[in-house]
Amino acid sequence: MGASYDASVPDPLELANGTHVLHLFFRVYGSNDPVDGSAVTLAVKRAETDGVQVVPVALVGHKADLGVMALGPDLWRLRRLQSDLQASGAELVDSYISITEVSEYAKGMPTEALQARLYPVLPPEGKRAFCFYPMSKRRGETHNWYELPYDERHELMLGHGKTGRTFAGRVVQLITASAGLDDYEWGVTLFANHADDLKDVVYTMRFDEASARYAEFGRFLTGVVGTIDEVVAELLR
Amino acid sequence: MGASYDASVPDPLELANGTHVLHLFFRVYGSNDPVDGSAVTLAVKRAETDGVQVVPVALVGHKADLGVMALGPDLWRLRRLQSDLQASGAELVDSYISITEVSEYAKGMPTEALQARLYPVLPPEGKRAFCFYPMSKRRGETHNWYELPYDERHELMLGHGKTGRTFAGRVVQLITASAGLDDYEWGVTLFANHADDLKDVVYTMRFDEASARYAEFGRFLTGVVGTIDEVVAELLR
Amino acid sequence: MGASYDASVPDPLELANGTHVLHLFFRVYGSNDPVDGSAVTLAVKRAETDGVQVVPVALVGHKADLGVMALGPDLWRLRRLQSDLQASGAELVDSYISITEVSEYAKGMPTEALQARLYPVLPPEGKRAFCFYPMSKRRGETHNWYELPYDERHELMLGHGKTGRTFAGRVVQLITASAGLDDYEWGVTLFANHADDLKDVVYTMRFDEASARYAEFGRFLTGVVGTIDEVVAELLR
Amino acid sequence: MGASYDASVPDPLELANGTHVLHLFFRVYGSNDPVDGSAVTLAVKRAETDGVQVVPVALVGHKADLGVMALGPDLWRLRRLQSDLQASGAELVDSYISITEVSEYAKGMPTEALQARLYPVLPPEGKRAFCFYPMSKRRGETHNWYELPYDERHELMLGHGKTGRTFAGRVVQLITASAGLDDYEWGVTLFANHADDLKDVVYTMRFDEASARYAEFGRFLTGVVGTIDEVVAELLR
Amino acid sequence: MGASYDASVPDPLELANGTHVLHLFFRVYGSNDPVDGSAVTLAVKRAETDGVQVVPVALVGHKADLGVMALGPDLWRLRRLQSDLQASGAELVDSYISITEVSEYAKGMPTEALQARLYPVLPPEGKRAFCFYPMSKRRGETHNWYELPYDERHELMLGHGKTGRTFAGRVVQLITASAGLDDYEWGVTLFANHADDLKDVVYTMRFDEASARYAEFGRFLTGVVGTIDEVVAELLR
Repeated sequence: MGASYDASVPDPLELANGTHVLHLFFRVYGSNDPVDGSAVTLAVKRAETDGVQVVPVALVGHKADLGVMALGPDLWRLRRLQSDLQASGAELVDSYISITEVSEYAKGMPTEALQARLYPVLPPEGKRAFCFYPMSKRRGETHNWYELPYDERHELMLGHGKTGRTFAGRVVQLITASAGLDDYEWGVTLFANHADDLKDVVYTMRFDEASARYAEFGRFLTGVVGTIDEVVAELLR
Repeated sequence: MGASYDASVPDPLELANGTHVLHLFFRVYGSNDPVDGSAVTLAVKRAETDGVQVVPVALVGHKADLGVMALGPDLWRLRRLQSDLQASGAELVDSYISITEVSEYAKGMPTEALQARLYPVLPPEGKRAFCFYPMSKRRGETHNWYELPYDERHELMLGHGKTGRTFAGRVVQLITASAGLDDYEWGVTLFANHADDLKDVVYTMRFDEASARYAEFGRFLTGVVGTIDEVVAELLR
Repeated sequence: MGASYDASVPDPLELANGTHVLHLFFRVYGSNDPVDGSAVTLAVKRAETDGVQVVPVALVGHKADLGVMALGPDLWRLRRLQSDLQASGAELVDSYISITEVSEYAKGMPTEALQARLYPVLPPEGKRAFCFYPMSKRRGETHNWYELPYDERHELMLGHGKTGRTFAGRVVQLITASAGLDDYEWGVTLFANHADDLKDVVYTMRFDEASARYAEFGRFLTGVVGTIDEVVAELLR
Repeated sequence: MGASYDASVPDPLELANGTHVLHLFFRVYGSNDPVDGSAVTLAVKRAETDGVQVVPVALVGHKADLGVMALGPDLWRLRRLQSDLQASGAELVDSYISITEVSEYAKGMPTEALQARLYPVLPPEGKRAFCFYPMSKRRGETHNWYELPYDERHELMLGHGKTGRTFAGRVVQLITASAGLDDYEWGVTLFANHADDLKDVVYTMRFDEASARYAEFGRFLTGVVGTIDEVVAELLR
Repeated sequence: MGASYDASVPDPLELANGTHVLHLFFRVYGSNDPVDGSAVTLAVKRAETDGVQVVPVALVGHKADLGVMALGPDLWRLRRLQSDLQASGAELVDSYISITEVSEYAKGMPTEALQARLYPVLPPEGKRAFCFYPMSKRRGETHNWYELPYDERHELMLGHGKTGRTFAGRVVQLITASAGLDDYEWGVTLFANHADDLKDVVYTMRFDEASARYAEFGRFLTGVVGTIDEVVAELLR
């Protein structure tokens, strides 16, 4: 442990490959203290200055008001962003911790494509309809993904990917890995032109055998991507 | 991003087809601050002025007190209604985000009927008994809706619709799509003459194979439709 | 909508047949404001004056302290009782909305018996041990109540009723319908001489095929029926 | 209803056989008001004066801090203990209501043993490691306890009891009945010399067919039995 | 009960073999009172002085902010640590109680290895990526771990351990027993070099038959191990 490993700034904790992805979902109404919108904005801008990518989202519905999707190399720095946002008075009510990965079915891709998966640039331009959900592969007593041979899983994933690509131009998806990190095995973040694109892609893919038979879905959080100024201004009117 | 895409009024986020439907369910007792009834009323009336359709409901039971079902083209505007209602002190405890759709089984309908599904006019006159619940089609290990061929699904849905039509005049239903948007695949909103009509239609349809074998239901929220003035007056006595 | 359908007193919303049944379960400790016991008592007495039947219960355990089972023809009036009780400072933490019904298996009963089911008089004298739970019929992948033919369901229900009648004099039960209204299909309210009568009847009936194979039970709430004065005095000591 | 059935002291509600058992689990940190430790102690001592047996427990973990297991003939008196403890400011966050019973498989026992089951004397001396959990017998689609013939259930229970008796001297268990009273069918309270005795007995019995195939377990609450003075002193330091 | 068994310091409650392990997970934002960071630090240091091993963790996400994993011989002393931490104003929102054990499949190990399992020294140096989750073996209607013969279970566990050992140097795991103590049968604590090591080991092992077919996982809590000074400084900025 080096000299910088003191109480004020611990050594960074980085990944061997890829980047940490922390989805944070806050309520800004209902807590005891009023939320300080400028503290929210400042926390985001400081993290961006430190090299963290931040996607702000105005969510709809009771699950949360404010979404902050943050990607960065150092887990301590993401934790600091979380603390700064909590200190604004916003109540952290949901979250997801995952990491970017090149899945075992995608190892053969060109280097550039692999890098795009490990180090994505977000949000995609013009795709403001946002949705996040976690998922796992089913380990049922009859149908168990983890008991299928690799080749069968590979083929199912190829078919699934093919369906997904028919939505190119309408939807951008980021699938991040969370086995050993959070309650499901993957987090799925979708960016689309319109909310009906989100519905169409998820509904259509549900008929693929990989989803129909083997997918278990968690909760869905939906909203609109904006700048942090827009999002704070709309939420804290 | 155009000039209007600034912090104060972001560009609208609309659907390619149909309209957003946001069910908001609030508690008006138990929060720290007293709820400002006139702020609730004002929030609803302003949204109506901006072209949002709003159905106010006095719910019964602990799940929520005040229901506000809002339909509108711009998701930012619905979010603004949500923020305005939260700012009244009412606690948002449940919600559902969905969109109108013409289902894959109904594409052949006359244009007028399709338009009525995509752009419904609510609430239906005189039908004050209200109920909302979300549902999905089962993906069980033995019975999996998403592994059935289209023709079999189509036939089951036709039979189900036929049962539903025997309740014409007693019940109006609106089924909205939420795959990729919320935790279930559809939201169901029922308007009826009496609460026993709600019970009769749901109980009767449960014996249809489409429901008996393939439906998974979420929670049910029940109440009485009124004007926003009536509802606020009754809830905040 | 008639002249009386204004903000102060909306038109009643009644059933075509039977009466609404609203179980309300409150916590009287732990909320921010002290509960006003006399407001609780007054709310109940006013509802009784308006023709609502009210059964007050002192519940045991953490789920709730105060139970109020209310039966009445107008859903607005029951909502008003709910609002009045909430305004006392009691926290509404659980509830159930259902309606009385003559089940499809009981249509042949004498008129007087039918009326007793649709318009029960409660509580039964001397039966102070109280329990409420909701239930549904199972729609499993192997055993699905809603796929059984009517005759088989009828026979199972007759056998179940026969077991129930062996508890005549010890237990009075009221089964109310909630499909389309609340999260389960029926609410079951039991009134017994002693808590062991409640245990005996539920345990014994669990071996009937109608329950053993086809029943899904929700939470159980248990307590003692008293007058509203007794219950308030015991809970708010 | 006699003359004593007035607001101040309702008639006792007793069992036909056995005694009520109320497990109450409180948090003493995190509520708005500081907890009054002397009020907790006084509530327990008053109940003991009235013939209620009370077992105080210092629980570990977030589920609750303070456990109070109370056994007594009058359900009103147990409710009064609950109210008195709640009035101390402790937050009641979990509980279980059950009754002592002689199970259908144990009816042939000597009178003295039957009495010990119906009217147990607690806590057993020196057995300070405490655990409580509720359980039900499984009603699965393949393995359904309630569809087994009596003889098969009897044999499974005998084998299960035999395993349990190998822990004599290390563990004392009390199984109380809660069908019709709380969410599971039985409550299990274990008293042991050490926490590893609790682990050993539960782990070992899990291989018995009665548990392996047919048991459904609820949450487990674990802690240390002490005097009420010790427990209050340790929890409210 | 000896003379020291008075209200101020009860007799220790120790295990026959091994040590108690208490995972405590706190929120430090959102409670009514500000958290006293120096009280947190003091509570940890006092426990260490009394021979308790403490691993402080800065968690990420909404489930909790501060993790404190404590190992010690006396359950009362761990409870005292819990009370001291709660008294700092931190809100205890999750936890797990378990004990170290030598599993039935590992009894043949050398004495030194057995001691290392019963009395581990934590945290392992340089392994700052932390994750905790509880798990049970499945008792499904088709695949039931507890109905397998010992030899089959033993072989599955040996294969599982072999996979685990391929992660030596990247991941250290501690599996502690909680049957009869908490809601799952084991707690799993992982310490790794990087968060992708946590993901890799859990994902890889999920394909082992012991996990694929027989494991049921609870929630996952993830964070970074630091000194108590580092963790408090980062969380309470």
